[in-house]
Amino acid sequence: MNIGILIIGNELTSGMTQDTNSSFMARELYEQGWSVSAVMTVGDDRNAIRGGLDYLMGISDALVVAGGLGPTADDITTTAVAGAFGLDLYIDEAVLKQLKERFDRVGIPWTENNAKQAIFPEEAGIIDNPVGTACGFLLDRDGSPVAVIPGVPAEARKMFSDGVIPLFRDKIAYREHVAKRTIKTFGRTESQIDQALSHEDLEIPGVSIGFYPRFPEIHLVVTSRGEDRGRAEENLRVVCERIEGQLYSYIFGYDDDTMEGVAAALLTDRELTLSVAESCTGGLITDRLTDVPGSSVFLERGVVTYSNTSKVELLGVPASTIEKYGVVSEEAAILMAEGVKKLAGTDIGLSTTGIAGPAGGTEEKPVGTVFIALSAGKGTTCRRFLFRWDRRRIKEISSQIALNMLRRFLVEGDGLT
Amino acid sequence: MNIGILIIGNELTSGMTQDTNSSFMARELYEQGWSVSAVMTVGDDRNAIRGGLDYLMGISDALVVAGGLGPTADDITTTAVAGAFGLDLYIDEAVLKQLKERFDRVGIPWTENNAKQAIFPEEAGIIDNPVGTACGFLLDRDGSPVAVIPGVPAEARKMFSDGVIPLFRDKIAYREHVAKRTIKTFGRTESQIDQALSHEDLEIPGVSIGFYPRFPEIHLVVTSRGEDRGRAEENLRVVCERIEGQLYSYIFGYDDDTMEGVAAALLTDRELTLSVAESCTGGLITDRLTDVPGSSVFLERGVVTYSNTSKVELLGVPASTIEKYGVVSEEAAILMAEGVKKLAGTDIGLSTTGIAGPAGGTEEKPVGTVFIALSAGKGTTCRRFLFRWDRRRIKEISSQIALNMLRRFLVEGDGLT
Repeated sequence: MNIGILIIGNELTSGMTQDTNSSFMARELYEQGWSVSAVMTVGDDRNAIRGGLDYLMGISDALVVAGGLGPTADDITTTAVAGAFGLDLYIDEAVLKQLKERFDRVGIPWTENNAKQAIFPEEAGIIDNPVGTACGFLLDRDGSPVAVIPGVPAEARKMFSDGVIPLFRDKIAYREHVAKRTIKTFGRTESQIDQALSHEDLEIPGVSIGFYPRFPEIHLVVTSRGEDRGRAEENLRVVCERIEGQLYSYIFGYDDDTMEGVAAALLTDRELTLSVAESCTGGLITDRLTDVPGSSVFLERGVVTYSNTSKVELLGVPASTIEKYGVVSEEAAILMAEGVKKLAGTDIGLSTTGIAGPAGGTEEKPVGTVFIALSAGKGTTCRRFLFRWDRRRIKEISSQIALNMLRRFLVEGDGLT
Repeated sequence: MNIGILIIGNELTSGMTQDTNSSFMARELYEQGWSVSAVMTVGDDRNAIRGGLDYLMGISDALVVAGGLGPTADDITTTAVAGAFGLDLYIDEAVLKQLKERFDRVGIPWTENNAKQAIFPEEAGIIDNPVGTACGFLLDRDGSPVAVIPGVPAEARKMFSDGVIPLFRDKIAYREHVAKRTIKTFGRTESQIDQALSHEDLEIPGVSIGFYPRFPEIHLVVTSRGEDRGRAEENLRVVCERIEGQLYSYIFGYDDDTMEGVAAALLTDRELTLSVAESCTGGLITDRLTDVPGSSVFLERGVVTYSNTSKVELLGVPASTIEKYGVVSEEAAILMAEGVKKLAGTDIGLSTTGIAGPAGGTEEKPVGTVFIALSAGKGTTCRRFLFRWDRRRIKEISSQIALNMLRRFLVEGDGLT
């Protein structure tokens, strides 16, 4: 089955915004065992939309259209699609009522231009939007489904996965079963992982493995297809097990797992508490950990000690240590982790100190130098890194390594007592 | 002038790789004053490429094709393009010689499949590749130029900017100038902003305004086109000034500005220092502020006080206050902002406390209740909010409001003494 994707928005054809929806959708479709006939991106222009619809319908069994469903005058997708297919428009009173209730609930005053989002082509089935105001809709063109959804990425992704894919599966005779699993790794490059895998052991008919770098992680998507559901799932299980045997400690999670979520679950399970002292990561470690619901169970405190004074006051790092070794040093990182653990009275203390740049580097400690320490029980471990990325990426990789050190310590003990 | 973009590669239609070339090229074209008629992405498939070429040629004055020029068997762009236009292929001996010399120089053994990269359609003009092995080529189809370049992003960008754009300018009469500015707003919805603007005052020929929601912000991109550069820029200035008059305090920045960057610049300019006490935002405020290079000048410390003990120890919030009013209360937020300011010895203290959910809500204080306080000099201000989003978005909007309170205080004084 061939699916066309039409993306609509002047912000895309002007290069103002990078479209990420089509890539997401292509991947989801691919994992369903379907193909993408073509992706087309056009501006908010009636003729361009009509031309794109016509062309894609000609080469596809189904169509997804995303973008241009907002309340403002430049959003014309609904009327353009209705016009292209010769359909009249109507106001859906139930959707209108829901919209007004939503505005009420959130406390935003209702303005009449929002009523536009309750207008649909006749014959359309409504596709619910659980994360925003613009509903989507589904049309049937001579047996080919055409789904129209908003372009806001969070909404497009949710509605595509939960709304459009199941609708397409209903509409289209479909026999192949697809089982898939995402294996998430950290700590090795794509080519190192590729080399670490014994590919001949992983060659099972109907099973494919895709590599998806998601900085700073590498994800492996294992897809198993077959007419027999049990067989497809069994093949998936076998291949995943073999990959696990080959990559073991570089795998931190699966599917929707995040590094912070895995670390948080381990802390919660083991009833251990954590405190964090951040310098170069600036709060990113606790920001990530507090994205996990229930993190207050294990997270006692975080401190972002950007000044020397704060390192002395909040962590008990002696001013003399800072003077002797510098704030970016193994000594400082160790005392930060031990200090925050002691003062917070937690089981584990985690710390980062480094030079995220662009300024502040020296010959001995150039920009990108980062020390990360973990203290637990009577032991403390510290690692030194040199990263060659920009400020934000240095923060991201440092927070990732800190959380991975925490994870590996919780899984393996990792040398501390 | 309308330009079509055709991107070719199975890695794109399967969602394995995110295409970034088309967005880059669209932006470059837009800045030349040209429009993108459509962007189409197809797999390495002869029919799909032919269909895409035909469709795009029909709606465009010129075409750029990127991808599929590599040495391996799946790269078929050259033969597909030649086939679609009915052109024979030939081996360019000069390019072949250059290729072999290049392999020699780099010390990579020559293999015969590389000779493929010296094959071009007859009539083609060669487009040099200064950063890789695959040259591009330019064809003329009844006066419309068609440029074909490799898809490797570094090569595509360099060859597009330095090779294709000048060739297109040579081929096409070119007069229009484009001036643009992005106005970034926060605190009003897209439709509220739409209604707040007096559109008739903003209707100047050649000037258009686009709305781009970037949660939690709304960006307005004002674009002014015209044959006269001075006139286009003057029109842009006039429209921006009128928008500023209508939206004044909701505008926090322009173009590449970020909320944290604007707040950081104001603190730095005024030589004021800041400390932050975060509960529900979990470190996101300091994470954002420390993304700004040089933030150590004004940021003394941040504390993420997730436990009651840490609020007492790091902020001096009396346990009795927490007991009486709860940790999520106006009283706690105010004492947190005042406490961190005092203990850190900074000019300004900022605090957040709230229930980010999904659990932890009560009837009086449901999930999404957030208090944000700012303390400066002898005054402290506190605002209460109720958000209806998920945990991450509650953190994002809370950090945004806190930074915006800081910004408005620095710009306007905002009632504190």
